[in-house]
Parts: sequence; structure tokens; C-alpha cells
Amino acid sequence: MLGLLLDGTPRTRAQLIAQTGLARSTLRARLDALLGAGFVTDEGNDAFTGGRPANRFAFNARARVALVADVGATRATVAITALDSAILARGQLSLDIADGPEPVLARLITAWRALLVEADGADTTLAGVGLGLPGPVEHSSGRLNHPPIMPGWDGYEVRARLEHEFGVPVLVDNEVNLMALGEYTTAFPDLDDLIVVKVATGIGSGFISNGVLHRGAVGAAGDIGHILAHRDHDTPCQCGNTGCLEAVASGPAIAATLRAKGIEAHANDDVVDLVQSGNVAAGLAVRQAGRDIGDVLARCVSMFNPSAIVVGGTLAAAGDALLAGVREAIYHRSLPLATGGLRIVRSRAGEDAGVLGAAAMVRQHVLSPSVVDKMLS
Amino acid sequence: MLGLLLDGTPRTRAQLIAQTGLARSTLRARLDALLGAGFVTDEGNDAFTGGRPANRFAFNARARVALVADVGATRATVAITALDSAILARGQLSLDIADGPEPVLARLITAWRALLVEADGADTTLAGVGLGLPGPVEHSSGRLNHPPIMPGWDGYEVRARLEHEFGVPVLVDNEVNLMALGEYTTAFPDLDDLIVVKVATGIGSGFISNGVLHRGAVGAAGDIGHILAHRDHDTPCQCGNTGCLEAVASGPAIAATLRAKGIEAHANDDVVDLVQSGNVAAGLAVRQAGRDIGDVLARCVSMFNPSAIVVGGTLAAAGDALLAGVREAIYHRSLPLATGGLRIVRSRAGEDAGVLGAAAMVRQHVLSPSVVDKMLS
Repeated sequence: MLGLLLDGTPRTRAQLIAQTGLARSTLRARLDALLGAGFVTDEGNDAFTGGRPANRFAFNARARVALVADVGATRATVAITALDSAILARGQLSLDIADGPEPVLARLITAWRALLVEADGADTTLAGVGLGLPGPVEHSSGRLNHPPIMPGWDGYEVRARLEHEFGVPVLVDNEVNLMALGEYTTAFPDLDDLIVVKVATGIGSGFISNGVLHRGAVGAAGDIGHILAHRDHDTPCQCGNTGCLEAVASGPAIAATLRAKGIEAHANDDVVDLVQSGNVAAGLAVRQAGRDIGDVLARCVSMFNPSAIVVGGTLAAAGDALLAGVREAIYHRSLPLATGGLRIVRSRAGEDAGVLGAAAMVRQHVLSPSVVDKMLS
Repeated sequence: MLGLLLDGTPRTRAQLIAQTGLARSTLRARLDALLGAGFVTDEGNDAFTGGRPANRFAFNARARVALVADVGATRATVAITALDSAILARGQLSLDIADGPEPVLARLITAWRALLVEADGADTTLAGVGLGLPGPVEHSSGRLNHPPIMPGWDGYEVRARLEHEFGVPVLVDNEVNLMALGEYTTAFPDLDDLIVVKVATGIGSGFISNGVLHRGAVGAAGDIGHILAHRDHDTPCQCGNTGCLEAVASGPAIAATLRAKGIEAHANDDVVDLVQSGNVAAGLAVRQAGRDIGDVLARCVSMFNPSAIVVGGTLAAAGDALLAGVREAIYHRSLPLATGGLRIVRSRAGEDAGVLGAAAMVRQHVLSPSVVDKMLS
């Protein structure tokens, strides 16, 4: 019944009985439970249909809120969201993921608590916590699985720490997976086979298959940052190998290329600013990074046959230079059938993609039939 | 309710009401309709539980049969299957897919009709037709999409032709996709992220993501046969390009390699026979083909992060040589995290994988809630 109401259309008892096939007594019990839990509201009877006026019932997206965060290598977006992914409050943090789990999670907890105070006008009954982290996550346990840039996090019980703090379900996933889920659920809901690429301090991708996040056997799906790039196999990577895609095409790698040419560039934003201000060397370096990324993605485009590739992350703000490089390499190297209708576009959910995905992850869990049934019984 | 009974456990009316929440009147109507359609049988009351004996109802997999075929480049397996994928009758055909759709489909129709006569003892009410073809198929329309080795098939209305013939739903997919679905549903049901590779006259692969076939935007997912292989970029391929994986590592390519060494080998079976009889050159050539295939798959293993790679097709019968080559290349070239728990194993469903997948495809369609509801209303 809740699944039916998620489309946003209010319905009368008679309509709910007709559309679910539930017994009148079963429907009454479930409706009372959902009303009691606040998930459904009685909208009254503004539509008088002849005979006795019939009250209509609607899904209440504000019944619960989620605490969500999208944590990258050097910064995090934290937010409070409603069950329809509406962002009720939002904040940004600078951090260093290499500080380890305890200090990073402590900062997130402080930020969430501050947002809860700020959003005190909203209904603040917590539904759950949704967290994206910049490494391979075993989604079923919420544990990191040998993350290359996150010393101290391997196997750490992220979920237990946050469940202890907030007393609600905690869901953890790779931040790029959540970015993909955010783009899919809010910006590209018709494209059921999608690859979303993040280009920032790290490089990663997330796959949507048949409308569902493809996480892979150990949560490593889409982990393209440490695949060997086609050019320049000698550049050292912070993971310990050389020639990784991240080592040649990430924001820091582009900044290093520019510094070697005598151009001042340190942070990702410096690179973006240079490109936007028309610096030719920066434009060329970003385009080459796009080609490097496209080269690595090309074979997977042939094999995964996505409807679209969505390019996001800080560097996507550099504009068409990055996309042009990605397009050039993919159209050059992928099979014609797989690229015939392929769209290669810039992120639409933008900087919020990760937290929107985290909100969708919490919603999918909290409103899953088994969780709702358990809560109401 | 049918979804509940698919687990094979018979249930009483009271159990069905308790487990579905349906109103008694709704349950009675649906049960009568399912009994009338034969999908459910009344098992009687062999379990006397005190008080009034309660009849138990069970799913009847023999209520309908599917006509299924797995069509490769040079031969086809045709079968009649029950709704639980049990094979009731089976046959083999030699054919040439390049003869075009009319003659090939006519041969399949003749073969199916002969099997129906042979299986006349079985209940022969048709549920549907499930067909696997050796090219990219747009599953929603059943049309081939620029198949490289199937002249005359591009855009041909396969589904309309067979629906006209049999008057039941017709489902068409790529034969390697169906092989993947067959391996998953019958042999590896716990491995929800699977890559199945077919090595025969052609080379292809099928992906299972979250337990669902990943077909891709235009049905081209898993189409690895015409990706450029790492070695020998000059060998001409029948698709018109050079250096395709199929041109260097398929059965005919291995046979050509052996002939160039003065060894008599023409069909795939010749290659398999040579390897099984201990011919060293044949063993080495098959192992090299395995390496070529592994090289092409390696990057996708890093990105798709499957639980297992299942190797099937005629050449898989050559034994460990092929698997050893695939393993060598994948472990050499894929990311450690993606290969840590990866299993690379030989097909278990064997030659029946394709028809078992076609049977699963028909079952998934025929027993989908919307189709069942429509049929019963």
C-alpha cells in the first residue's frame, strides 16, 4: 500500500482496497499503523464525489528525515533530507580522509547535530543515516574493503559507530556509487543503464544496471582510479603503484602538470579557475585528462553498453574541455553499436549528487516492504 | 500468491491468507482462477492437522510448456521445457545462421513441431517461445541490431513471425545472454554478479547484475567478440575489421592456427578432440586463446567486479587449457581487489545453458505479476 502511495497521488480507502486487493480489515489495520507512524497523512475529503465524502490518504515524505553525507578525499557535504530526497539543510566541511575513521566520523556527527539544531522547524524523527565514503565499501556490512587512500579505515565498523550514536539504521556505500544513484534517481530516471564518472582528487565511477546500483561482488565495481592508464606508465600513485589513471588524470595530477609548466595550480579549484579564465595550457591538460579517462572507460562502454555516461566531480566544472576529451577517446575506441546512441553529458545533480544518492539509499531501505512490515508489526 | 507458491511448498487456504494478507473473497477468486488455468493444483489434504482437514495448493510447473531454442552460428539446440525449466524433449540441428531468418526460423519451427509430437504425453499447452540468437538483440522488440555475422537478420521481425506461427508470447534475446541466465538460474543461483563467456565459433559474454540479466542500452552488453585483441592486430575478421578477439581466439581461429602448423583441424570439435588426445600444439593454441580472451575481459573484471567468470561454449570442452589461459591473463591484468575472491570456472549447465536460459526468460515473463493478472482477469 505504501508502495502505491509513493507516486504522490492521494487515494481513498475504496481506491486502496481496489488497487491492493487487501481485505477491508487488513487495510484498516495497516492504514492505522501507517497513520500512527506518520508515513501516511489523512488529507480529508476536499473531493466530494457524491454520497458519503471519502477521506483521501497520502504519503508523507516529511515523516522522517535522513542524515546524509558525501565524503570525498578532502571534503564532505553533509545534509538533512526528507524521504523524497528534498534537502532540508546542508553544509560543507574540509577534512582529510587520511586522518582515519574516528576523527572524520566525529566531525560528521558534529556537523549533523548542528544541522539538526538549524532545521529544528522540520520534523526531526530520524529514519536513518546514509554515508558515502571514498573507497570500496562492502555494502552489506558497511565496512571498507582495502581502501587505497584511507589509512586506518580498512575493516573499521563504520555502521556500528554511527548506529551507536543515532540509534537508527546506518547505510554505507562508496561515494561514487551514491553519486551515480543520485544522478539516476533525480536527474536521469529514464536511463536504466548508466555510468557516472567522478573526476576530482580521486577518479571513480558508479554503474546503474536495470535501474539498480551495480556494486559488484566486493563493492569494487566502477573502481577505475587505479587501472593502468594508456599513457605515462611511470607516474607514481599514492596507492603505491605507478601509472594509475588517478596518477595522470585527477585534479592533483593536472595541477602538477601545470606547475611543471610554471603555472601556479595547487587545488582542483585552481585548475577549474584557470580553464574558466581561458588559460590554454590548463584547457589542454584537462582535455588530455578527459582522453585518459575515456581510454580507460572505452572497453567497458563496449561491454556494459550504457545509455549515457555522466561526468561529474569538481573537475566537471572546468566545462567542455573535460567532456570533449572523454568523448574523443570513447568514440575512437569503443564498438560502434555501443556508442551509436550513447550520450556523454555533464552531471545534472552537480555537487549534491552524492547526498541525493545517500538520501535515495536510506529511502530505499526504510520504505522497503520488509522494513515497513517489521516496523508496523 | 503465485509468487509465494513458486518456492514449491504447498499451502492451505489459511496459510495463503496469512502470508498474502488478501481478503478471503479475493483469495478465493484468485485461487479459483489459478486452479482453472492449471497453474495451481489442489494437492488434497494428506496432512490432517486436527479439526477440519485443509486442502493444500501447489504450483504446477507442468501447466504450460515453452518452446525454446539456442541458436549459434552453425548449430542450434531446440527443446520443450516445463515452467521450472525441466527439459521435456530436446533436439540438435546443424544450420548456417547466414542463410537468413526465413529458412532458419522455418527449420526451428519444424523441429519444435516434431518435438511437440514426440512429447505428446506431456501437457502441451504453450506458455511462450524463447529464442536465443547469435547477435545483439533489442530485447523489448525482439529485433536484431546490426548483427555482424547474420546477413538478412537486421531489423527482421523475429517475434511477429513466431507469434503468427504459435499464437503465444515470443521472447528473443542474445544467445550468450540466455546462456548466462541459464547458468545463473540453474547452476549458480547464489552468485548475483556473474560474467558468462561463450567460446565457440563466435565469442561473446553475458552479465548478471544483482541477479538480473544486464542487457545494456541496445542489447549490446557483453559483446566482446569484436573488441580488438591485444596481439595480432592484422588477422581479418568476418565482420570486416581486423584483429577482433573472435578473429584470433575463436574455434575457427584456433583451427586455422593449427592448420598453419600442418595439423588437420577444421571444426571446433576437431580442436577439442586434438586437445583431449594430448596434442601439444593444440593445447598451447587453446591456452593462448584463453589468454587473449582473459586480456579482453581483464579490465572489465576490474570495473564490473563479478563473483565468478563462467567459461562455456564448445571450446570449454577442451578442458583446463582454455581456463588456465583465461585465469593467467585475468589475474595478471585485473585489480587485486576485484580478483581476490574471483572464481573462474567451467560452465555447469553445459550445452543446455542456452535453452535453460530461454526457459527461464519465458517463465519470468509468463509468471510476472502483470501477465498473470491480465490472464486471470
